[in-house]
Amino acid sequence: LRRRQASLQHHRVMKWPWLLGGLDALVVTSLANILYLTNFAGSTAIVVITAERLFFLTDFRYLTTMSDMQGTPFECPGLEVVTVAGSYDATLAELLLSLKASRVGFEAAHLSVARHQWLLARIAEGNRPPELVPTDAVVETARVRKDSHEVGVLREGARRLSYVATEVFGGIRSGQTERDVAALIERRMREAGFEKSAFDTIVAGGPNGALPHARPGERKLTEGDLVVLDFGGVYDSYCVDLTRTVSVGPAQPRARQVYGAVLKAHDLAIAAVRPNVSRFAIDGAARESLGAAGMAEAFGHGTGHGLGIEIHEDPRIGRRRPDLDTQDDVVSPGMVFTIEPGAYFPGWGGVRIEDDVLVTETGVEVLTNVTTELLEL
Amino acid sequence: LRRRQASLQHHRVMKWPWLLGGLDALVVTSLANILYLTNFAGSTAIVVITAERLFFLTDFRYLTTMSDMQGTPFECPGLEVVTVAGSYDATLAELLLSLKASRVGFEAAHLSVARHQWLLARIAEGNRPPELVPTDAVVETARVRKDSHEVGVLREGARRLSYVATEVFGGIRSGQTERDVAALIERRMREAGFEKSAFDTIVAGGPNGALPHARPGERKLTEGDLVVLDFGGVYDSYCVDLTRTVSVGPAQPRARQVYGAVLKAHDLAIAAVRPNVSRFAIDGAARESLGAAGMAEAFGHGTGHGLGIEIHEDPRIGRRRPDLDTQDDVVSPGMVFTIEPGAYFPGWGGVRIEDDVLVTETGVEVLTNVTTELLEL
Repeated sequence: LRRRQASLQHHRVMKWPWLLGGLDALVVTSLANILYLTNFAGSTAIVVITAERLFFLTDFRYLTTMSDMQGTPFECPGLEVVTVAGSYDATLAELLLSLKASRVGFEAAHLSVARHQWLLARIAEGNRPPELVPTDAVVETARVRKDSHEVGVLREGARRLSYVATEVFGGIRSGQTERDVAALIERRMREAGFEKSAFDTIVAGGPNGALPHARPGERKLTEGDLVVLDFGGVYDSYCVDLTRTVSVGPAQPRARQVYGAVLKAHDLAIAAVRPNVSRFAIDGAARESLGAAGMAEAFGHGTGHGLGIEIHEDPRIGRRRPDLDTQDDVVSPGMVFTIEPGAYFPGWGGVRIEDDVLVTETGVEVLTNVTTELLEL
Repeated sequence: LRRRQASLQHHRVMKWPWLLGGLDALVVTSLANILYLTNFAGSTAIVVITAERLFFLTDFRYLTTMSDMQGTPFECPGLEVVTVAGSYDATLAELLLSLKASRVGFEAAHLSVARHQWLLARIAEGNRPPELVPTDAVVETARVRKDSHEVGVLREGARRLSYVATEVFGGIRSGQTERDVAALIERRMREAGFEKSAFDTIVAGGPNGALPHARPGERKLTEGDLVVLDFGGVYDSYCVDLTRTVSVGPAQPRARQVYGAVLKAHDLAIAAVRPNVSRFAIDGAARESLGAAGMAEAFGHGTGHGLGIEIHEDPRIGRRRPDLDTQDDVVSPGMVFTIEPGAYFPGWGGVRIEDDVLVTETGVEVLTNVTTELLEL
């Protein structure tokens, strides 16, 4: 709830005509997009923007929250609350009809077929119903380049997460269960000022490390294990994310070899980040390096993902998908994303090393700050 | 991941013909529904069921998880893995065309307009594309009445959550911040065997108690505060939920009065629960009681919500919404839901009391077990 009014006002003035394109209004149903536009961090709301106004539909539960923000630096300037007494979508239909707009955009990726059908049927009952026009990633496109307020929050979040990592790694011992370590990480994140975990914490020891999305279980960490620790927190509404792979006791030769190959891929990918470089080229830097080490098959996921209000957002740093990626997208100053190559061997285990980076005017700033040496704990 | 094979097999045999209705296949995109049907607890998958087969589309990250379940009691019998190399929806389109089905259902509430449009366009390129038929709550309807395995898990989860509550309340002191108490609750839930929080923990002291969905902040608990504590955990993939309102030090007369009114509404609503009673009547029992105490306006939300794989599922225990609720739905044995009336006064604070109940063959079983007396800590 601490996003600054000045920042919101800036968005409003600079971006709204562009957001609306040729539309009379835009219905925003994605909560992440709503938070970006208004500072609202609750669980239910709809926003409707026109060239002049911002309507904010919410119910009883959040009315006090909204009125408490009035007059504070966190207030969204000019926001008009529309109280929902019954159904959100019925209230939305009524508002859209009252606007007498002819072309109203909606977020096609964030409205279900069922709600869309219902809305169409309901507004068709009204007088001169507007046309509902699907839009794609309108607010997301604005979100992808972070402004100075957002960069500040992400930098601070990454700093705190790095502190948590260093603290937690110092406490890892053989005999602890994966679940114990996950609980410790989450406790330390809370203590460090995070609102909550950004995703389910991963602590995957030994063979479990071969599962990129393993759930922490009752397996005890054992001398000689590599352990993948992947965790992140929400700080001031923004997500940061970090992975390190550590060795319990002295590392085995194969562990050193795999770790070295993943670290090289990680370093080369970060070195490739600068304005106007293709995101596919950044992925390629990691992928070719692991390929040269004979580990192409072992690296089955993308190199990274954007960070912001959501833990996974644009830009995606991965292979070009011919059917979906039609342009050679380049990265730009203000983009924040992860670099997290890995190598996984079923039955043996895995290694992943992840940092958060910011594209600057001239190159890259690594926001997280934890040693990338293989820790032997 | 511990849902039992026998339970899944039972679902398959008993319910699939019914799930399919007149369709040749059903595409399931809701992760909660996928977990229900297959035991898969990861973050990305699509399921396609036909009368004879269950296709499970997932990517690299989860292949080992799926093969590790084979031959265990948690395996989904007969599940056929389809590996997604590029895009999930492209793989889905290819599979649907290969089935040579003519009518394929999809979950209209869980497919976005954008994905639906893309899928339609993609299958139209194929030979004899199937018709895509919107369906409503097919799997959700099966989920609403819990089987004996699910009831066992929810009962155990509620037992553990009650233990956490009793432990936490014993440690509350004036001077702690809301955030401290929230962190303590989450730590204790982890220690009690919960996989994670089921939702953002609420600890709202004094005036913050008037915000039904308050976020824990830096406010310190103060002598004379009423504090609303609302928290829940995911135990073995199922969600349980509990709220108590406690007093820091001796309660003020008005606090006692409001607490008494909410408790009476809570008790009357629970007393109203038995098979074949309308869910609107259960809500009415709480609402009329608070109305008689002059607090109708102060109770702005519904009386409860279903619990299961999701923290909010059917049945909704609320007011009848004339535009949405066309039938007088009754509750049935096996349904599990919360009863959580509240009263909120902006600037003063609020009271909410919540328990989890199971509809039995003859009446109601309260699954949570924490005193409802006003605790003065």
